[in-house]
Amino acid sequence: MLASWNDSVAKRAVIAFVQRVTSEGPGFVPAAGRIATFDNDGTLWVERPMPPQFDFLLRTWAAETKNEPSLANRQPYKAIIEGDTAFFAGILTQDPNVVSPLEHAVARSWKGTTPDEFEDQVRKFIATATQPRFGVSYTDLVYRPMLELFDYLKANDFRVFVCSGGGRDFMRVFAEETWGIYKEDVIGSAADYEYVDGRIVRQDRMLGGLALGPGKPAHIDAHTGRLPLLAGGNADVDTEMLESAKFALLINHDDEHREYAYTARAEKSLARAAELGWTVVNISTDWSTVFWF
Amino acid sequence: MLASWNDSVAKRAVIAFVQRVTSEGPGFVPAAGRIATFDNDGTLWVERPMPPQFDFLLRTWAAETKNEPSLANRQPYKAIIEGDTAFFAGILTQDPNVVSPLEHAVARSWKGTTPDEFEDQVRKFIATATQPRFGVSYTDLVYRPMLELFDYLKANDFRVFVCSGGGRDFMRVFAEETWGIYKEDVIGSAADYEYVDGRIVRQDRMLGGLALGPGKPAHIDAHTGRLPLLAGGNADVDTEMLESAKFALLINHDDEHREYAYTARAEKSLARAAELGWTVVNISTDWSTVFWF
Repeated sequence: MLASWNDSVAKRAVIAFVQRVTSEGPGFVPAAGRIATFDNDGTLWVERPMPPQFDFLLRTWAAETKNEPSLANRQPYKAIIEGDTAFFAGILTQDPNVVSPLEHAVARSWKGTTPDEFEDQVRKFIATATQPRFGVSYTDLVYRPMLELFDYLKANDFRVFVCSGGGRDFMRVFAEETWGIYKEDVIGSAADYEYVDGRIVRQDRMLGGLALGPGKPAHIDAHTGRLPLLAGGNADVDTEMLESAKFALLINHDDEHREYAYTARAEKSLARAAELGWTVVNISTDWSTVFWF
Repeated sequence: MLASWNDSVAKRAVIAFVQRVTSEGPGFVPAAGRIATFDNDGTLWVERPMPPQFDFLLRTWAAETKNEPSLANRQPYKAIIEGDTAFFAGILTQDPNVVSPLEHAVARSWKGTTPDEFEDQVRKFIATATQPRFGVSYTDLVYRPMLELFDYLKANDFRVFVCSGGGRDFMRVFAEETWGIYKEDVIGSAADYEYVDGRIVRQDRMLGGLALGPGKPAHIDAHTGRLPLLAGGNADVDTEMLESAKFALLINHDDEHREYAYTARAEKSLARAAELGWTVVNISTDWSTVFWF
């Protein structure tokens, strides 16, 4: 159990918490209440140089622009062709001049798509795309210690969920093979669907809001009827989910050699970790092994 | 297994299907795909003379009218005081002059309520309300054969979900004790929630549409990422869910002596059952025992 974790403060804190909630005594939590939730990008797999789903979107839109050159005059297609990374930086500040064209482009790409058609597209992407620095597929860049943590939690009668601001349906395609988690245990931002003529058909609107920031605990409670007993994240958009949990694990990317080193967009969560006594996992010292390869 | 089922066509059809999907061969379905979904009112418990949640709503509104007599001039409070059952019949035809006041009354009763507060109210109702004919609590009127079916399916690596047009959060209060199903496996019509100042707070809007008719398979797919392998229902509003499943079970209420006998609002689903070869469960002949008491 937890073989890729060094015998450090973080590992000991996780084990102490799990032993406390599973042992008779004041901290005991019945099995029904043992919900663990984890962010995906930067918590379960590499999110640099960009979250894999963003690579998927860019490839989709580049292909669409090739087939329909008139798109090249409009955002976000224009920015892709021109390599205008400044445009996409507007996502971070939720600039409506960036977010709105992106939402329209997502809707345009998948409007009326059935889940099976979308799944085929994602499978093809996962099978062929490689991460630029490591030259392997994105699913090879899942953190081995985190899947060991899933096993450890499941062995202690926790149900493990993933809750990401990224696309619920994107993650569900590889969740079972890659994480060993059923599709129904994947929570995320999602389109609404209707059942029409015997088929599930994607609608041009979202179901609920984005699963980011306060949207994470809201989505988790809607899906599971509970707030997490244990939660793991790595970024400011995970802060509310971590605050809502009884035990919070914050992944700190400090290993330039084996993975990446950055604190950008994790400043607030790192400050809250210090303030609230969350367990910070420093990749450089807490993990003996990072990947499976 | 299935001890309260007579050795009849219906029981044999269920067993034959489960054996087929769990045995190597052309009909085999890997465990990941083994999703079973069941309606609640009339499928898992007695829905006559009215669905229990409706009794809960009427009691809530009657109490509110007592505290605030001016409500008595407005619907649906007026109809409750006057015993105007014709008003409530408008639900069946989705009359906007009935549905709209009801939706407003629901929103008014629970706006800003936390899940814990709502849970307390439902627990109190379940603990004190009794069904008028049988004089026992509603949860004593869960069909014993259906819970045996849950056990049988789980023993064959199915995951069992409940999907009702009724309130998701109402059902989640008693799901774990009464059905042996975790809250996260309960799907239904639901309010949207936001996470504000560390609490989940109910908003004055729904999350997605009603889980009725085509809304059932849509809700099921959104929640689980799949359509059901096996589904059970009893009414016309279950038709699309049953059509979306590989194996459909339709409960036919034909036992006036031990339960109720009615086909109202099940005419379409009974016709589809005959047409599509669904397995019809006649309570009078297929169940040796109906309740636990």
